[in-house]
Amino acid sequence: MTVFAVVGHAAVTEGNFNLNDMPGSAGRMDVLCRCVNAALFLSHDLRRDTGCYLVLNGPPNPPKTILFSGDRIRSLNPDERSPGALIRKALLVTCGRDFRESTPGVSIRRGGLPELLDEHAFAVLDESGDDIRGESILPEALLLSDHQNLTREESELTAECPRFSVGPISLHADHAITVFLNERDRRCRR
Amino acid sequence: MTVFAVVGHAAVTEGNFNLNDMPGSAGRMDVLCRCVNAALFLSHDLRRDTGCYLVLNGPPNPPKTILFSGDRIRSLNPDERSPGALIRKALLVTCGRDFRESTPGVSIRRGGLPELLDEHAFAVLDESGDDIRGESILPEALLLSDHQNLTREESELTAECPRFSVGPISLHADHAITVFLNERDRRCRR
Repeated sequence: MTVFAVVGHAAVTEGNFNLNDMPGSAGRMDVLCRCVNAALFLSHDLRRDTGCYLVLNGPPNPPKTILFSGDRIRSLNPDERSPGALIRKALLVTCGRDFRESTPGVSIRRGGLPELLDEHAFAVLDESGDDIRGESILPEALLLSDHQNLTREESELTAECPRFSVGPISLHADHAITVFLNERDRRCRR
Repeated sequence: MTVFAVVGHAAVTEGNFNLNDMPGSAGRMDVLCRCVNAALFLSHDLRRDTGCYLVLNGPPNPPKTILFSGDRIRSLNPDERSPGALIRKALLVTCGRDFRESTPGVSIRRGGLPELLDEHAFAVLDESGDDIRGESILPEALLLSDHQNLTREESELTAECPRFSVGPISLHADHAITVFLNERDRRCRR
């Protein structure tokens, strides 16, 4: 099992956002949608051993965390609107501190990065980190940021996490997930 | 310069498609949009030395080919709707056998795969090919298919093209582009 967590600094926390304007009024929800799909999709298949947490830190009720579970997901298609629609449904659910399933394989709770850091030994995917190709064992929990860098507070919370890079150039978060999973695929199939 | 060409077997060739339904009525135009973005985007930057051809083989006027040029592109954002809107504008342009620019960095012409094969020495990205990591020199022109396999006719046209793989598992076309460019980035920055 490999899990990813992506921090959406402005991603809205109310389920009335417009699927036609995810980059704008939904706080770059499009970035998070692409990360879900990078984490879960194979060609004509789904990865059943990955998950993707989305940490939503935007208005009006942050933080909330949505989990897409590859082993249970249904009704997910590769276009951005598809995870967007499932995120919207999740945000319509009244949730507390425990994950509550909104649709098959998608669940939501109150809480954000601090809770996740208590639950998983995250490594941070960061272009300043050590190259994953040189690591003998790949981390099983990866933290990424959306189009913004981690805030000072988030950087302090993750100061003890190891840092890994997927290459010499800074990539979009979803592209970094794709490259990381390619490295994992190569090791699993050797 | 590295160029990608993606064959969209059902991708429509008229500029009136609905940006809210690219997977359906636009013939999986969403796949092609993601390929454009995988080919051209870096984090907060664009790749200025890549291009992406989209071969549109869907109704009502196939084939047409659209070229996104990284060195000239403007007004492109990372969400799927953004290249979708530029494709729509291109399809509204009356075009002949030569590329005609519809918006900065986007141009269109009549014609499809045979014309492209005359112009570039394509390699095919295919999971049955040789691993790109083992190649001393990477190809500079890569052909991919959308969610469908190449047709028999396309396979015959490309029978002499070398085949390369980006890993042990079959990936979406856009993910394959991302992994390929990561390998290229690592060699350029050594």
